[in-house]
Amino acid sequence: MPSSLPESPVLFLMSVGPDGAQTFAPADPAAPHLRIDDLGATRGDGIFESINVVGGAPQSLQHHLDRFARSARMMELPAPDPAAWTEALHRAVEAHAPGAELLAKLILTRGVEGTGVPSGWIHVFPGNDYSRDRTEGIDVLALERAYPSDVMTRAPWLLQGAKTLSYALNMASLRHARAQGAHDVVFVSSDGEVLEGPNSTVVAKFADRWVTTPPELGILEGTTQGRAFGYAAKRGDRTEIARLTVDDLKTADALWLVSSGRLCAPVRSLDGVPRPTDAAIQAELLHHLLTVHD
Amino acid sequence: MPSSLPESPVLFLMSVGPDGAQTFAPADPAAPHLRIDDLGATRGDGIFESINVVGGAPQSLQHHLDRFARSARMMELPAPDPAAWTEALHRAVEAHAPGAELLAKLILTRGVEGTGVPSGWIHVFPGNDYSRDRTEGIDVLALERAYPSDVMTRAPWLLQGAKTLSYALNMASLRHARAQGAHDVVFVSSDGEVLEGPNSTVVAKFADRWVTTPPELGILEGTTQGRAFGYAAKRGDRTEIARLTVDDLKTADALWLVSSGRLCAPVRSLDGVPRPTDAAIQAELLHHLLTVHD
Repeated sequence: MPSSLPESPVLFLMSVGPDGAQTFAPADPAAPHLRIDDLGATRGDGIFESINVVGGAPQSLQHHLDRFARSARMMELPAPDPAAWTEALHRAVEAHAPGAELLAKLILTRGVEGTGVPSGWIHVFPGNDYSRDRTEGIDVLALERAYPSDVMTRAPWLLQGAKTLSYALNMASLRHARAQGAHDVVFVSSDGEVLEGPNSTVVAKFADRWVTTPPELGILEGTTQGRAFGYAAKRGDRTEIARLTVDDLKTADALWLVSSGRLCAPVRSLDGVPRPTDAAIQAELLHHLLTVHD
Repeated sequence: MPSSLPESPVLFLMSVGPDGAQTFAPADPAAPHLRIDDLGATRGDGIFESINVVGGAPQSLQHHLDRFARSARMMELPAPDPAAWTEALHRAVEAHAPGAELLAKLILTRGVEGTGVPSGWIHVFPGNDYSRDRTEGIDVLALERAYPSDVMTRAPWLLQGAKTLSYALNMASLRHARAQGAHDVVFVSSDGEVLEGPNSTVVAKFADRWVTTPPELGILEGTTQGRAFGYAAKRGDRTEIARLTVDDLKTADALWLVSSGRLCAPVRSLDGVPRPTDAAIQAELLHHLLTVHD
């Protein structure tokens, strides 16, 4: 798609100066910009964030930038300069034709092998249409992620908790679920703890108590989950970070997979067993996530 | 490095015709060829093989092509056309200035998101100088890989056993080992089974019995390991695929990490404890691996 069309994606590419300064310039997203020996492409050796942009406002921006910085530290990548990335993100969003919801991907790789110079870019494009997931809900399979819940203390070298580009198993798990007729996945540790989705966070509601699973399980701290808890608090409900089993999920009054692009998808069945959703709360939660950006 | 220098790398890029036919053409490896939304770069969503090329001959070629095809099936990627990839590999090797040992990387990604058209390339470049690892040996740490040894039956959706581009944890484990002063890693399952290295296979010798660990543990079938067993058989020794513990490794008469580029690196210490190496056998094994190509 030529970049002059209104709906076309926008790309800002990072350059690194001799002093390490990170600067950005617009580039054609339909043209090639990466060498075939970029470690992002040969080793999934990099990090990313996906940020929802609603009415021109990047949501949970500070939380995303903090997580991006944390992933970079864990991966021993150069720190992304928050001022440079923030400014470039805003310029990229402004350069894009307005859309109800856009998605901005921030990516930083270890760069071309042997150079020590990272590659980075910000890609802004129209978000998918998630209206069906949001209104009808999704069918979810619980799948074993095959690591123990103490992985972060037991095997910190595996970098569970960093948001790396090495997502092949996440994508494979989603393909597996879709081949079984489901839409999405909840990962479970080898010792039975609910973890997260392949690209989402689990939020369960038990009466007036909202629960998400703890980052110490080797999962990502959810940005959208944080805003969902903001909605719960506004309702006067309690919020809690606690361990959950799949059986716990089955008894929840409402259950969601929440993530930056789709925001909140109510889980209408788990492992083939239908479960309640709450259309009124879903509508209010979605409204909150679309309008409250921090 | 400009591509006219004799030692410069060679790149052959794949094109996919409307009928799905895979063809290759030479391209400048120093120029960008990948879009920033190639799923290889954004999701580590692709597969690879690294092939050692000695005196112009790609080693274990059929074994590599078989494993490449198996990884593609597991990942639900289009099958690499073995005739097209073989011909392009030979052309790329011929186009490279002769070198004692070259490395050829075959990579196939899921391509630009939304297109359904894979990206593929063959990159031929001078191998690293591994003479020190080969002669002095390497210091190795046993690190937990934090999955159970029955991962392939228990969680096949995780695709353990496919050689994907999602190598961030392999690279992180190597960085961890190097920060501890070691050179390399042996991964161990959460239930104590020796698995493989982050980019190598374990071969242990107990008297006249050579052992490697079984692919059913969710590890890659080693191409170089197969040739090392060929050497063992030529000596009249026994070869066996069997489960091993780290304690077993400590009692081995000789222990190697074997892989395509480095071929065979004798392990001279494991978790900081010096262990015997056998210089005579190492020299013979290395000679075999450098001269017998299948």
